[in-house]
Amino acid sequence: MFKTIIENLSAIKEKKPLVHHITNYVTVNDCANITLAIGASPVMADDEQEVTDMVSYAAALVLNIGTLNSRTVNAMLKAGQKAKNMGIPVIFDPVGVGATNFRSETAKMILRELSPTVIRGNMSEIKILAGQNVVIKGVDSVADSTDGVRIARELSEKLRCIVAITGPTDIVCSPDRLCFIDNGHPMLTDVTGTGCMTTSLIGAYCGAGKDYFISTAAGIMTMGLAGELAYRSLLPADGVGTFKQRLFDSVYCLTPEMINEGGKIKYEQV
Amino acid sequence: MFKTIIENLSAIKEKKPLVHHITNYVTVNDCANITLAIGASPVMADDEQEVTDMVSYAAALVLNIGTLNSRTVNAMLKAGQKAKNMGIPVIFDPVGVGATNFRSETAKMILRELSPTVIRGNMSEIKILAGQNVVIKGVDSVADSTDGVRIARELSEKLRCIVAITGPTDIVCSPDRLCFIDNGHPMLTDVTGTGCMTTSLIGAYCGAGKDYFISTAAGIMTMGLAGELAYRSLLPADGVGTFKQRLFDSVYCLTPEMINEGGKIKYEQV
Amino acid sequence: MFKTIIENLSAIKEKKPLVHHITNYVTVNDCANITLAIGASPVMADDEQEVTDMVSYAAALVLNIGTLNSRTVNAMLKAGQKAKNMGIPVIFDPVGVGATNFRSETAKMILRELSPTVIRGNMSEIKILAGQNVVIKGVDSVADSTDGVRIARELSEKLRCIVAITGPTDIVCSPDRLCFIDNGHPMLTDVTGTGCMTTSLIGAYCGAGKDYFISTAAGIMTMGLAGELAYRSLLPADGVGTFKQRLFDSVYCLTPEMINEGGKIKYEQV
Repeated sequence: MFKTIIENLSAIKEKKPLVHHITNYVTVNDCANITLAIGASPVMADDEQEVTDMVSYAAALVLNIGTLNSRTVNAMLKAGQKAKNMGIPVIFDPVGVGATNFRSETAKMILRELSPTVIRGNMSEIKILAGQNVVIKGVDSVADSTDGVRIARELSEKLRCIVAITGPTDIVCSPDRLCFIDNGHPMLTDVTGTGCMTTSLIGAYCGAGKDYFISTAAGIMTMGLAGELAYRSLLPADGVGTFKQRLFDSVYCLTPEMINEGGKIKYEQV
Repeated sequence: MFKTIIENLSAIKEKKPLVHHITNYVTVNDCANITLAIGASPVMADDEQEVTDMVSYAAALVLNIGTLNSRTVNAMLKAGQKAKNMGIPVIFDPVGVGATNFRSETAKMILRELSPTVIRGNMSEIKILAGQNVVIKGVDSVADSTDGVRIARELSEKLRCIVAITGPTDIVCSPDRLCFIDNGHPMLTDVTGTGCMTTSLIGAYCGAGKDYFISTAAGIMTMGLAGELAYRSLLPADGVGTFKQRLFDSVYCLTPEMINEGGKIKYEQV
Repeated sequence: MFKTIIENLSAIKEKKPLVHHITNYVTVNDCANITLAIGASPVMADDEQEVTDMVSYAAALVLNIGTLNSRTVNAMLKAGQKAKNMGIPVIFDPVGVGATNFRSETAKMILRELSPTVIRGNMSEIKILAGQNVVIKGVDSVADSTDGVRIARELSEKLRCIVAITGPTDIVCSPDRLCFIDNGHPMLTDVTGTGCMTTSLIGAYCGAGKDYFISTAAGIMTMGLAGELAYRSLLPADGVGTFKQRLFDSVYCLTPEMINEGGKIKYEQV
């Protein structure tokens, strides 16, 4: 699997796939910069009048409902429809689904109308999408990991897509494949947007490689490795400011050797 | 007072209060990250269709009119109404009030409809809210500090809320209490959003402690201390880029000892 | 020319001109911070109801169509009209023009209705504005530099404005003047918003000095020099995170000596 991930990384740097984002205004700058750091090219148009045009140049489409509003919901649907027609992957980040009725209804509509290629969320978000009862607190995950694999698999089979749950151990699941990723560092949860950026990285990998299951694992592992490298570089008085800067440095400087030596993916035949 | 502030800080880290922001898109990422850095949890929903749902999980609501538009004004009013009904504190940052009629009218409406718990602004903004004539220049403060205390106290009594004026010496005033804070560094004015972030920190402290006067002083002192620590860490070629990164580091690494040793609050019995 | 640029820089620090931006939400924080770093004062209001009021305090207006929507188009036109009436410079950044019909139509309207003082774009964007056929890929430049000077000059003469094309060698052109700038570093293209920030710097220089041709060259050279200084400061494991931080440091710490020693401007009499 590492061999394919390394080829995928190298394909990003060669092809510079355009990753169109319709995303939230909280972490949008970080998403653009992480997309550039891995070697892809970001674009962030979100107006109904232009998303169809813009998607036509894209190699992947990322939809993120972090700061949803009625204007962008329509843009997401139009952009997603265009992406489907073009056959490019749609990566969906259901930020905070379940916290509000508006998010839940929008997420359902996106699943129904667009059949995303990949869905990446935290444990709470994926459980909500799978129809489980979860106690919600804003946009952070509070659900425990019991049944995480079973739920990811069921959702993956039901929607015929790749489902990724990120957390202490990440789960990536397609209807016929499953893997666990053990990279990462708790400090990643002390910086806003590390989830959104992971989704952008998945978008970059999916835009350059055709095996979306591996692309999804690659995006998640890249952010996990970057978190480990960033943490290791910290000096005593350093905190989240330096850590965040180092995340971008680490993704930018990521080498095949680092993936081979540091990647912790457990692949399970299903 | 330091003892209570330290307990308040420790309560943030334990309870991780959710601080709902409806804020501007210029500094929103910094507000989210400073909220995380102190140990609280930020959420930034701003659509009318979901703010009421989202506020229901929150421990504090921050309203900031830095990039106002008609869509978010309504969201602010709905969110604020919900916060009032729940009894959680509403912290209002009247960015640039007085510069435009739209901001002034919106600020008046927020004061009238929502009776904020805390108002934090610079000298110009608070003087405008108090009905003084101030020469305006964009969103920076140009008013001098003459009568600052008197005006803060009058506004505080009139609105029955806590009024904070940040500047070289910060003033925090409630109808029956008053304190001055002498932490901070001029370089804080060379980074955008340090005012907004101060308001977010107040939101975090208010979300975890019931004495909102002390929570307000704590938020302001935290940013001031972080500014001092950040400045002290700079090397010769460092500038605002490094300084800003160090602000987040400093808030993240803030200890009770730093507060005891570095805090400069002068409390006055009223 | 360096003498005038240095005087212009010193005028920024003295007058702190207010630079009103209507810009995209991807890089808006960076634009605000770079404006502060050079010594000017940024403001980012974009609602139709207040832009006219806000522009009345401004020394320059920056219009950037990076994340265009119908709401902000109207705000741009109103703000631009006010700026024209006041006689303050309008600096236009046609991000991604040509990629979508919406952007192209909006850009045309801005040119027609507002006659910007300065237009700064990459090679593709300026060629599109000049009516050339260019193969587009999102918001990055893919056009080659053939005929760059001729096209910049023709557009400059047609619109009676200053036209700047940024790239490996930057071109600044007015109906009767021309210069080339050879500062910069390829790593500037690995960070989002370096183009937008260059436009903000042009806004700051134009807000403090009356020779807009030189102000435009000054803004571009400042970003180029900052890129070189930032790159030179990097250590082996540093990447785009550290580089970006250093950009702000470098603009903040820019001295007349650095401009005299490092500036690479070739001025051509036309």
